[in-house]
Amino acid sequence: METNRLEAFSDGVLAIIITIMVLELKVPHGADLEALKPLLPVFLSYVLSFIYVGIYWNNHHHLLKACRRVTGPIMWANLHLLFWLSLFPFATGWMGENHVAPLPTALYGVVLLCAAIAYYILQSCILKGQGDSKLAGALGSDLKGKLSPLVYLAAIGAAFYQPWISASFYVAAALVWLIPDRRIERVIAECE
Amino acid sequence: METNRLEAFSDGVLAIIITIMVLELKVPHGADLEALKPLLPVFLSYVLSFIYVGIYWNNHHHLLKACRRVTGPIMWANLHLLFWLSLFPFATGWMGENHVAPLPTALYGVVLLCAAIAYYILQSCILKGQGDSKLAGALGSDLKGKLSPLVYLAAIGAAFYQPWISASFYVAAALVWLIPDRRIERVIAECE
Amino acid sequence: METNRLEAFSDGVLAIIITIMVLELKVPHGADLEALKPLLPVFLSYVLSFIYVGIYWNNHHHLLKACRRVTGPIMWANLHLLFWLSLFPFATGWMGENHVAPLPTALYGVVLLCAAIAYYILQSCILKGQGDSKLAGALGSDLKGKLSPLVYLAAIGAAFYQPWISASFYVAAALVWLIPDRRIERVIAECE
Amino acid sequence: METNRLEAFSDGVLAIIITIMVLELKVPHGADLEALKPLLPVFLSYVLSFIYVGIYWNNHHHLLKACRRVTGPIMWANLHLLFWLSLFPFATGWMGENHVAPLPTALYGVVLLCAAIAYYILQSCILKGQGDSKLAGALGSDLKGKLSPLVYLAAIGAAFYQPWISASFYVAAALVWLIPDRRIERVIAECE
Repeated sequence: METNRLEAFSDGVLAIIITIMVLELKVPHGADLEALKPLLPVFLSYVLSFIYVGIYWNNHHHLLKACRRVTGPIMWANLHLLFWLSLFPFATGWMGENHVAPLPTALYGVVLLCAAIAYYILQSCILKGQGDSKLAGALGSDLKGKLSPLVYLAAIGAAFYQPWISASFYVAAALVWLIPDRRIERVIAECE
Repeated sequence: METNRLEAFSDGVLAIIITIMVLELKVPHGADLEALKPLLPVFLSYVLSFIYVGIYWNNHHHLLKACRRVTGPIMWANLHLLFWLSLFPFATGWMGENHVAPLPTALYGVVLLCAAIAYYILQSCILKGQGDSKLAGALGSDLKGKLSPLVYLAAIGAAFYQPWISASFYVAAALVWLIPDRRIERVIAECE
Repeated sequence: METNRLEAFSDGVLAIIITIMVLELKVPHGADLEALKPLLPVFLSYVLSFIYVGIYWNNHHHLLKACRRVTGPIMWANLHLLFWLSLFPFATGWMGENHVAPLPTALYGVVLLCAAIAYYILQSCILKGQGDSKLAGALGSDLKGKLSPLVYLAAIGAAFYQPWISASFYVAAALVWLIPDRRIERVIAECE
Repeated sequence: METNRLEAFSDGVLAIIITIMVLELKVPHGADLEALKPLLPVFLSYVLSFIYVGIYWNNHHHLLKACRRVTGPIMWANLHLLFWLSLFPFATGWMGENHVAPLPTALYGVVLLCAAIAYYILQSCILKGQGDSKLAGALGSDLKGKLSPLVYLAAIGAAFYQPWISASFYVAAALVWLIPDRRIERVIAECE
């Protein structure tokens, strides 16, 4: 019952983040294809960020199911994660409107990196509060969780040379994460 | 219990979509009837989209009640549906502000069509995950679900000749859907 | 359990309406009192609308507690109420920005009137679906519910002569409604 | 069960407040560091307000867990608190965009002060409705709750001489509050 309100609040914030990102897709004044064209990069970065927020929602959902007691540190680690996710609309809009220019593309990676670190902290807090070796075992080497920050770091660096390389890194990382975290899912299924 | 959070998140996103659409109805600077007049088509397209989101909320509510276990594919099929619904405010605003011009009216139909396809995919995922022949039987020939994409397709084509024909198609399809999905409702009532 | 999702969705929409109204209170460019002054009527109409949405949330909460089964008509009557409430931010912003000019003040009354009628329809649907004479008895003559539409009507008319009279009517009606609907509350307490 | 909907509605409003504050962080037109620089104070005040809303959410969560029955006064005291919190995005944006100018910085303190008073009123209503001496005992001298309004008052005064002193007061008060309200937590743990 304790985790319910944490989930509900996080769901609320994630639902709003995923929806206000679309507000960056401003209604153009013209009514022809020319008016839509400058919106294409904004739309594509919206799609990418929508998928990222969806991934976070999915993994967050699985992670919290493994959490039985919400402590103070878990609450703040969760808010810390929501903080970085709340910067997605800004980072997405800036990258999209500037057609994947170097600095905005790097900043997008910084926000992704910070969100990944915040997720890692939240996961550690829950593992610690749990004292449950099962979840820890399930996460195993946590390859995806450890590799993606490196990918974001590489993308941040690449942005100043060729931003499109960074963009493809972001897309690739998203595709890898689209596969749900079956490890945690399996352990929970076993516990039930 | 598993479906609860999926419902809560979807409800959050749908509640935000239905409400931020009204932000396209920008407060005019004048204080007379002249100032309100250009808002009329924006208002009418808001009403239409409000009804569409309401229909999706209603049907989604019925569909999820038939879903007992949320799998990875169901989660992503649901997010995919929410993605297309999240484009309603943009499509509504563009059609409304351009007084039902050809391209915006066609785009509105494209968003409706994609949302209908996404709903169909979600329904299939739930049917499959369920392995429940009762729901499948209840949906029967699913005439409404199969006809409305054709109506949207026809409306997209008609938009380039006479956009008002498309608009009346959208209104007609909404009216047909206003009738709740009693088929699913009946089976659930029988199961209880 | 059925009413839960209706409540959750309505809560979501009401929470968003009550919060996006504050977006009409645009951050001024100056940093002195002069910059704040034109915001005063916008702020006051925000306070008034915040109270009205709060009243609706309160009464809606009491009404739904008396509703045991959600039928199709109840769902649509509820969405119909949410539709009119969703126009509060627009009506509030227009009245506030035009310093209580005649037409915006009348329109504010029209939205209040339509919301009151929509609430009455929802109440009737629930009473009917309930077949419960207790709630019907509790509402009794429903003086407040029957008088306030008349007050709004009078205020709409008065707006074209002296809009401040309308504004004081709106304030007075809100104050009367601030008293929670103890009638329904009492019957529910008796049932439990 | 009664407190559930109050929690859900408050969570919804708090989730929206915390998220729309980020809308004040408007996407700049340039794509270089120069374009980001004027956003720094807006960003910092966003961080501060995010922490404040997080603190309120945390404490509100603990407080409501101690509340067993929602009465009319508790409902309105809660809405009153949400009202002042809903002004955070405006106060944050005004202070941030004017680079901590005197009046906006003072107004930020006024909103903080009013929210603190509203929280105190809500706490009193719950204590009274509870008739529970345990929670009252747990709050004890409630030093933090009594000192922070004084800090906000001092900061409001200081804003007209040296606004940065006020800003550091706001930061200091937030840091003190970051420590969760273990007193209430302890009593609840004992009750269970």
